[in-house]
Amino acid sequence: MLDVYHHRGVTAWLTGLSGAGKSTIASAASRELLALGFHVEILDADELRKHLNRDLGFSRTDRIENCRRIGYVANLLTRQGIVVLVAAIAPYRLIRQELRETIGEFLEIYVDAPLHVCESRDPKGLYRKTRRGELSGFTGVDDPYEEPLSPDLRCTTERETILESVEKVVNLIVSVAQDGRPISLK
Amino acid sequence: MLDVYHHRGVTAWLTGLSGAGKSTIASAASRELLALGFHVEILDADELRKHLNRDLGFSRTDRIENCRRIGYVANLLTRQGIVVLVAAIAPYRLIRQELRETIGEFLEIYVDAPLHVCESRDPKGLYRKTRRGELSGFTGVDDPYEEPLSPDLRCTTERETILESVEKVVNLIVSVAQDGRPISLK
Repeated sequence: MLDVYHHRGVTAWLTGLSGAGKSTIASAASRELLALGFHVEILDADELRKHLNRDLGFSRTDRIENCRRIGYVANLLTRQGIVVLVAAIAPYRLIRQELRETIGEFLEIYVDAPLHVCESRDPKGLYRKTRRGELSGFTGVDDPYEEPLSPDLRCTTERETILESVEKVVNLIVSVAQDGRPISLK
Repeated sequence: MLDVYHHRGVTAWLTGLSGAGKSTIASAASRELLALGFHVEILDADELRKHLNRDLGFSRTDRIENCRRIGYVANLLTRQGIVVLVAAIAPYRLIRQELRETIGEFLEIYVDAPLHVCESRDPKGLYRKTRRGELSGFTGVDDPYEEPLSPDLRCTTERETILESVEKVVNLIVSVAQDGRPISLK
């Protein structure tokens, strides 16, 4: 009697250093996907640290718990047929592997930019603070980032435009979520 | 191009003492709503304490945080058009008021049974443990439960059957979520 979504849910997890472009790509991809008729939710780690994860710091344990909670919510939404765009560093291979195994439909998207590029962008001023010794345990500087070995997609934001990265992300998600029905991209 | 849900999202929060019947009603109502074609998610506090809220205890602060996190997730699902059934004691008026203000579409359903009835049911053996001094801070015994003053619905599970309670809950949710389209109940 009631119609259901004609697309499947999927979690596209954008992983990468601070300043690599995760939130920017997630936000632009969300707008494109909404325009295509998809049901989309963005889970941005910075935002979630104000709500769901406000008790968590940046120790290894807390970073893992941060990812687990985001993953738990992403999975709830994914199994309801929502396209979930996660923008979160998720620095350890172990936790990304766990997320892939936990979440029904999972895409690991590596937003790849070298440290010196991210540091020159420094959108939140956090690299500067770290270099001045005002912050510690910052991913890529004095906390590890374990690069994905075989991500489902790689956006090399040093070389490609935001638009190019976004198109790659949207195309991949559409191909996974469309569930066999033809969807004409703009 | 893609069809959307033909019902609105809503969070139906079942509040009440341990043993009042919250999980039982949520579970049965979920089955009915799924059969009617609704998209439904159950957020059961006991389950969530194994995942999202496993760091939380039963102090006032932790109980409030427990409700806030559940509310955050419920709101995400609700705004995506899902019917969310929450089974969680939510013992304080303050937090239930906050949830009502935070979640776009919120129903407070009081699963109402007197303490002596809940204690005689004692499905998890927790009242016995509390009376034996093995547990403390148990809602209704040595931690407060502030009864809803004007809930959207009251299920008096001491007097009505599970089926009667479930029908009341389902009818209310359908009337809120159906968005003006006629839905024929079984």
